[in-house]
Amino acid sequence: MAPRKTVGILGGGQLGRMLTHPAALLGIPLLILDSGEYTPAKQTLLAPQPHSHPDGPFTSEQHIRELASKCDILTVEIEHVNADVLESVEREGLCEVQPSPRTIRLIQDKYEQKKYLAERGIPVAPFEGLPSNPTEEDVVAVTKNLGLPIMLKAKTLAYDGRGNSPLQSTHSKDIQASLTHLGDRPLYAEGWAPFVKEVAVMVVRNKEGEVRSYDAVETIHRESILRVCLAPLRGEKGVNHRARELAEKAVGHLEGAGIFGVEMFLMEDGSLLLNEIAPRPHNSGHHTIEAALTSQFENHLRAILSLPLGATALRVPSAAMINILGSSSSMDPVHAMADSALSVPGAAVHLYGKAESRKARKMGHITLTAESDAELNERLRTILFAQPDADAKWIDPIAPPPPSPAHSHAKPLVGIIMGSDSDLPVMLPATKILDQFKVPYELTITSAHRTPERMVKYAKAAAGRGLRAIIAGAGGAAHLPGMVASETSLPVIGVPVKASVLDGVDSLYSIVQMPRGIPCATVGINNSTNAALLAIRILGTSIPALQEATEDYSKQLEEEVLGKVERLEEIGWEKYAEGLKK
Amino acid sequence: MAPRKTVGILGGGQLGRMLTHPAALLGIPLLILDSGEYTPAKQTLLAPQPHSHPDGPFTSEQHIRELASKCDILTVEIEHVNADVLESVEREGLCEVQPSPRTIRLIQDKYEQKKYLAERGIPVAPFEGLPSNPTEEDVVAVTKNLGLPIMLKAKTLAYDGRGNSPLQSTHSKDIQASLTHLGDRPLYAEGWAPFVKEVAVMVVRNKEGEVRSYDAVETIHRESILRVCLAPLRGEKGVNHRARELAEKAVGHLEGAGIFGVEMFLMEDGSLLLNEIAPRPHNSGHHTIEAALTSQFENHLRAILSLPLGATALRVPSAAMINILGSSSSMDPVHAMADSALSVPGAAVHLYGKAESRKARKMGHITLTAESDAELNERLRTILFAQPDADAKWIDPIAPPPPSPAHSHAKPLVGIIMGSDSDLPVMLPATKILDQFKVPYELTITSAHRTPERMVKYAKAAAGRGLRAIIAGAGGAAHLPGMVASETSLPVIGVPVKASVLDGVDSLYSIVQMPRGIPCATVGINNSTNAALLAIRILGTSIPALQEATEDYSKQLEEEVLGKVERLEEIGWEKYAEGLKK
Repeated sequence: MAPRKTVGILGGGQLGRMLTHPAALLGIPLLILDSGEYTPAKQTLLAPQPHSHPDGPFTSEQHIRELASKCDILTVEIEHVNADVLESVEREGLCEVQPSPRTIRLIQDKYEQKKYLAERGIPVAPFEGLPSNPTEEDVVAVTKNLGLPIMLKAKTLAYDGRGNSPLQSTHSKDIQASLTHLGDRPLYAEGWAPFVKEVAVMVVRNKEGEVRSYDAVETIHRESILRVCLAPLRGEKGVNHRARELAEKAVGHLEGAGIFGVEMFLMEDGSLLLNEIAPRPHNSGHHTIEAALTSQFENHLRAILSLPLGATALRVPSAAMINILGSSSSMDPVHAMADSALSVPGAAVHLYGKAESRKARKMGHITLTAESDAELNERLRTILFAQPDADAKWIDPIAPPPPSPAHSHAKPLVGIIMGSDSDLPVMLPATKILDQFKVPYELTITSAHRTPERMVKYAKAAAGRGLRAIIAGAGGAAHLPGMVASETSLPVIGVPVKASVLDGVDSLYSIVQMPRGIPCATVGINNSTNAALLAIRILGTSIPALQEATEDYSKQLEEEVLGKVERLEEIGWEKYAEGLKK
Repeated sequence: MAPRKTVGILGGGQLGRMLTHPAALLGIPLLILDSGEYTPAKQTLLAPQPHSHPDGPFTSEQHIRELASKCDILTVEIEHVNADVLESVEREGLCEVQPSPRTIRLIQDKYEQKKYLAERGIPVAPFEGLPSNPTEEDVVAVTKNLGLPIMLKAKTLAYDGRGNSPLQSTHSKDIQASLTHLGDRPLYAEGWAPFVKEVAVMVVRNKEGEVRSYDAVETIHRESILRVCLAPLRGEKGVNHRARELAEKAVGHLEGAGIFGVEMFLMEDGSLLLNEIAPRPHNSGHHTIEAALTSQFENHLRAILSLPLGATALRVPSAAMINILGSSSSMDPVHAMADSALSVPGAAVHLYGKAESRKARKMGHITLTAESDAELNERLRTILFAQPDADAKWIDPIAPPPPSPAHSHAKPLVGIIMGSDSDLPVMLPATKILDQFKVPYELTITSAHRTPERMVKYAKAAAGRGLRAIIAGAGGAAHLPGMVASETSLPVIGVPVKASVLDGVDSLYSIVQMPRGIPCATVGINNSTNAALLAIRILGTSIPALQEATEDYSKQLEEEVLGKVERLEEIGWEKYAEGLKK
């Protein structure tokens, strides 16, 4: 039928299921190896004629060989596969395997993976191997180099936090508890990485070694299980770019084609440490189905089939992914969570078609897309509070509540700044307008002359924090708006504040007469109202509702004046003028 | 398994196939009635245990009844179904049917549909019924009221232009040719509707009568077959809104729940005439899969199952849909078209899994999403030129070629206007900057005082045409920027032009000192460079690449100055100052 190669997937869970959709769209024949006729992936793509999906464990040599005999290329949706068999299949020329079985084998052993990456200059947390069946003394020995606390980790078959055990002290009791918890698996130890955020980047790589990354995301775990992803990663200038660079570099050292999930730690000082890599579609990339130009799943298929890699850019300003986890064997809470999302605009529900629920089992996910972080935040709160284990203490830092009046929004689109608290009365009308239009903003004081470092830091970080415009008020020499404009790529709106002399003309000239190269949008003297309205028009270029609100506002202004016209006719201009005096 | 009702679909073509994806996501069990095991829709969703998809014609009473016995609700993906059987199934309480069989029956007869809508105040082109087996005289008689030309149309079983025959004259030969062409089907006649655009709106309606519409689209046909959709509809102020209102009103008069495709004509004078309604997902709504918050397919399922209707807003600024039509029995051109799209960023390929190709058969489609109409236009041209019947004469009006230097772009994001050609030298640097940043723009002259009507028309239409900022230069009394700002919701950037007296301070004050309520972003006197850079910063809030380009530009400015510092040290300041004099 289609002139495409037939792909065999080891594993028929949700990742396989999400691969079936782009396979159908691109006409790629797919065979899924897993036990059972109704696994998530087998439900959503009929096997190509005359085949049916093979029924058996994806670790069984016999079944893998059978699958290979019917396919042109094998791939995996889980890394805990039989790498030996895949290697023989490849070596015997029975079938191509992507990513390379050597990469899968390397990644199966977290210790070997870390060693391999560290040797190639990829920054990782300090780590040390442990002998098999380590003694207390072995553990104490590694703390000499790594300090305390450390994390004891199983080298293999560890995921979703299973196979990790933190160790706070070298007390015999604690060490024994950790070793018992981890069982008799091969172990290694990692130094503590006191990260401020966990970060992930999906990277796709084709056989020619071309590598493309998606925007970095913040990943939020609870009890070691991924619960929420926020895209794109917000933070200090360039952090998204640096995370992508590191992830691309790491994947560049691996063999074979496909999509890779790269997990990292963002440290206090802004540095990044690589945590681990998954050689397959990854939970931290599920939002790409709706939020990116090409999904991670489609790009995996494109990469292994030597089709052109798809564009990875986000198609929305702001996105989130929320996992739907089973809370018991009952399906009811799963469906309740899914249903709660149906009333949230921009929420897309993905159920995985699993027949049985279990506590902490991934049963589905919800993708949110939004026009801004603030809009996303509101929707995210709704969805998080509908979860069975909802807990404000956990939710508030992820999706903060609305601010109290006259306080800054946690996810502002507009920043209002001024050089001095004496400018505040002039700048307050801007807050009234933004409140009226329900635009999230923040307000603070930063002076070009008295707090120059604070000003530079504010301006540099603004765009990366999700702001889309800055309103800066200043009087007299009025350097603030122009100086801020020099340190940001955002549009800056300057409000000339009338100071003690010269009627504000000094401020106006200081703000408007910027040198060629650095623009500052200037409004009338003391007219912070217009600064806010201009910021709203700027936001309206990406948020249609604000463009409509501007239309309505103008109409209302017209009606107000027409009302006055009527009153003038009604009572006559002499009486009207008297009214003006009062 | 899932607590959802089981849905039966009459028809298993591409529309059914596109319904299976949201059904899987929402856990909706689906049974598809169509002949064959491998129809497009049956390939992408396994029948729920213990069923298999029924195999038989969707017009067969026996098969419909069998389907109904296994389902809670029946729906259709094609309107040419057996409405009688559906009515009995509903009447006998065997199964719910949505949309109502009465609506399907009404829509099956185009003449009855038009009569029904016209009687309810929906504007349609003038039309008249014809007796069965009409004579020449009957046809001549209707031209008395409808004029010439007219369109003779089959009342039933007409789609993709089949069943329509235009009649230019009442010459016996022409009438006979038309009647012969249409065969012995029941006919009616429609007056000619000399539309400027064809427009379509998808409307979803639930059982409670709640109605939501999607953004209107422009539909572009070739040889009566839909080829391209452009979303959202661009044009005079409010046209999108009016099209949606009309579509919602029309669907409000129909019975039952589901998604409806409403086709309209946009006339020269801006009025809209309803052409026809499809009671199902429609080709003009395929872009909603990627481009809207909820796809038409998901909303159809939500509507018939009494789930909350999904948000219909576009999640991208600009989208298009291009049909992949068969050009012969060979699949090769189909795959070639699909493959050509893989290298186009933002293109999503949808193949329908049809086993056989035929000339003009819908084999798939491509969705394009983009950050702007200009970006979309470029991508659309690439895809249209890869079609087997590509033809610049047909493509150029749909996706115009890039402008020649110093001429306006067909899909501008920035409008540069000035009050007088004497301002042109001052405004030219803005064009250089926009060219440098590859931002599409247009440039024209419109004067607040000498062409006030032209100015108002320009300002009012700007946002609806896809512009995101206006740069307006003016000198002296300099009313243009502020007046334009009064008539648009876009950010307007005023460039004070230095006129013959007062060094431009008059222009500056005239532009910057706007009354509260109508903002105008003012830059330095004669500084159109900064106006362009400000426009780019504004665009950068929705186009990340432009934000990065602004960063790079600032870095370059810094490097230029640092270069000068070096040269100053090298040659000393006296020699340097001499160089400045030259």
